[in-house]
Amino acid sequence: MNTGPARGMRDFLPEDVRRRQYVIGVIADVYQRYGFEPLETPAVENIETLLGKYGEEGDKLIFKILKRGEGAATGQADLALRYDLTVPLARVVAEYRAKLPRFFKRYQVQPVWRADRPQKGRFREFYQCDVDAIGSRSMVVEAELLQAAGDVLARLGFTAYTLRLNHRGVLAGLLDAGGVPAPLHGDALVALDKLDKIGADAVAAELDTRGVPREGARRLLEFFGAVTSAAARAPADPSGFNADVLGRLEALLAGGRTEALTELRQIVALVGATPTGAHLRLDPSLARGLSYYTGSIFEIAVPDLAGSLGGGGRYDNLIGMFLGDAVPACGISLGLERILVVMGERQMFPGGLDARAADVMVTIWNLDALPDALALAAELRSEGLRVEVYPEAEKLGKQFKYAASRAVPFVTVVGDEEAAQGLVTVKNLTSGEQQRVPRADAARVIRAALAPA
Amino acid sequence: MNTGPARGMRDFLPEDVRRRQYVIGVIADVYQRYGFEPLETPAVENIETLLGKYGEEGDKLIFKILKRGEGAATGQADLALRYDLTVPLARVVAEYRAKLPRFFKRYQVQPVWRADRPQKGRFREFYQCDVDAIGSRSMVVEAELLQAAGDVLARLGFTAYTLRLNHRGVLAGLLDAGGVPAPLHGDALVALDKLDKIGADAVAAELDTRGVPREGARRLLEFFGAVTSAAARAPADPSGFNADVLGRLEALLAGGRTEALTELRQIVALVGATPTGAHLRLDPSLARGLSYYTGSIFEIAVPDLAGSLGGGGRYDNLIGMFLGDAVPACGISLGLERILVVMGERQMFPGGLDARAADVMVTIWNLDALPDALALAAELRSEGLRVEVYPEAEKLGKQFKYAASRAVPFVTVVGDEEAAQGLVTVKNLTSGEQQRVPRADAARVIRAALAPA
Repeated sequence: MNTGPARGMRDFLPEDVRRRQYVIGVIADVYQRYGFEPLETPAVENIETLLGKYGEEGDKLIFKILKRGEGAATGQADLALRYDLTVPLARVVAEYRAKLPRFFKRYQVQPVWRADRPQKGRFREFYQCDVDAIGSRSMVVEAELLQAAGDVLARLGFTAYTLRLNHRGVLAGLLDAGGVPAPLHGDALVALDKLDKIGADAVAAELDTRGVPREGARRLLEFFGAVTSAAARAPADPSGFNADVLGRLEALLAGGRTEALTELRQIVALVGATPTGAHLRLDPSLARGLSYYTGSIFEIAVPDLAGSLGGGGRYDNLIGMFLGDAVPACGISLGLERILVVMGERQMFPGGLDARAADVMVTIWNLDALPDALALAAELRSEGLRVEVYPEAEKLGKQFKYAASRAVPFVTVVGDEEAAQGLVTVKNLTSGEQQRVPRADAARVIRAALAPA
Repeated sequence: MNTGPARGMRDFLPEDVRRRQYVIGVIADVYQRYGFEPLETPAVENIETLLGKYGEEGDKLIFKILKRGEGAATGQADLALRYDLTVPLARVVAEYRAKLPRFFKRYQVQPVWRADRPQKGRFREFYQCDVDAIGSRSMVVEAELLQAAGDVLARLGFTAYTLRLNHRGVLAGLLDAGGVPAPLHGDALVALDKLDKIGADAVAAELDTRGVPREGARRLLEFFGAVTSAAARAPADPSGFNADVLGRLEALLAGGRTEALTELRQIVALVGATPTGAHLRLDPSLARGLSYYTGSIFEIAVPDLAGSLGGGGRYDNLIGMFLGDAVPACGISLGLERILVVMGERQMFPGGLDARAADVMVTIWNLDALPDALALAAELRSEGLRVEVYPEAEKLGKQFKYAASRAVPFVTVVGDEEAAQGLVTVKNLTSGEQQRVPRADAARVIRAALAPA
């Protein structure tokens, strides 16, 4: 029988779970500090809730659940597995609007499922960590989301991250200025997105093939070239760079798209007033998925990593698909799986995490001593220690060896002599030292030895 | 458009999630103190992994996932949603046997899905909290599982819980002693299970209908009657009662089933040496699902609750279905949903849990003051406070009202005068008091006021 997990899915053994829980814990703690509250939705949604929300390609990647009972014979599906956390959020906002606060700020850390072809680093079950603020068009929302993402990364030990910022309105304005007809905007962005990979000449050729007028293409490439070289010269503090880019954008957009530019200026000013400001960098070439965003867009980059650690933006129309009324919304999603991969490769996990399962193992002297061993374990646990009890009355040497193989640093022994005198032998398996102590002191002795010097 | 969750599924709004996370946190913390380690498996399993493990009725309740691509047209399923946490554990032990310790002790808190007809308190998505120890036949395993369950309940505030204990071998021995032929054991247990509901006469009639010989039925009912009346007389400390039941069992089994009786004696002695001992009560009428258990069985009861808060037992053959070799195993599963319902009804959640989303809300004086407001929020957060920023520059009174409606206890105001003098006004929304303090002191002042007196 096949005992592996299903294709593209993963089992998480204890060490994996501890790392995942550590990162999720930091994310939740930071989000709570920003006033975001936890939300959880079911793994299974009615199929109509999901279909038509992710484009034609997305629809194909939704895992569909067969009807039960008599419906099963028809091969029809009525339910489906959650595909992301944003559509369920929109559904929840529509369903509970009256109970929710005017500014509903929620975080949600749950798995999603996509029937993608599995490949290195891409799974069919993976976690998303979403944080969204509903109900306000103020750029305070964008600023707080970016700050919170920056705080998460800083707490996890990322120092050289960049928060790339752009605006959908600015992007559209740039393409208009480049004479790109609106129906070609998508094509042009796909080409421009390759600028750092294939270079300006190749992009110019591709724009030409896609029917973008040459003079406009030249102006666009000139603009992005200037921004790129300014970025290369940018100092550690990017505020001068951001001001420079805003100036260039204003010049190129020639009085158009003032609302989008004002929003970018506000975000830069607001985030600039906080420690996260040093990581914020305007990037007019940032595109992201265009279908869904209506304003600001952002993406998190770290050096030497293709792809991002997360991203998001403003989507003022999605909730309206469920509710009728448009409700403003903005969010950012952190890619847990990718954060874990990078932290693993760069050895960024705190040492204590590769943790032993227990602080101390209680050994078994003989079968008669079993009840006393459990009583000792209960005493040590009541003092806050994590205590393993060896389950068999085997030779002590074998028990010690097992504890050492599990990286448990201490063992206790209560032989006939110790039992008679109310003592416990505490042995440090790392140093080999051992001492007999009064039973009431055993927990204190072990705790003191465990405490960092 | 229907914006509710799918039938039998639930959305958890922030207050729900906080309660769930509180209980899960206590469970995980206690299990870790016993040396159990976390495991997580995918929500989706290959369909063959699940089919045939839960009986015919169980198979019908498995949610099946439609094949993708060309397979979709056939209406066939190749994947299915996790139905419990035990079968995935058995699969994991078979798959990773060589990497796992000899005594693998894991806990797992994850949702499972069953296509049951939804009704009050029964859902199609619900969490199980399982703890299992693999690899030992020692009764230390049973004792530690029962103790851990007792510790969880005590930490959650349950005082009058009972850990009911029985043994599959003892049950079989009782039925043998009652002259019940082996093929009728299941039927007889179904009838005996109703003893406290329908009374001895009705059970006798039912046993008769099911073909159980009358003399044997009489002896069985006499035995259970004696145990029940002994239980009614049992003192707060059940050790005398347990010894009495063991004596009666020994007499009735007349030298048979010695291994099962020895195991029960050991469990009673081991748990009796710890604080959980006061809650352990032998119950020869406890049956549980019979298909899967091979030794001890247990169930958690609390007064005035029909049904249990959890249960488990020893299943030494299940892993062998995946691995070939038999591997001993024993576990207990806590029913998270039922624990939550009881704790909610009995108001057992700690007060701090119905928590405000933030400790303090930073108000917005005017649009020009926005960057400074975000800077102040960052300062307060760096001191450990949970800080909400009002996103709009609306009238202060409206902002105060919003904070009060969200139960946020403090607001800050930095008007032109405060800004010029480096001060912050801190207003307590409960008492109405407000004070101007140096900006650097604001966090300390709020923290001091928040601390319990």
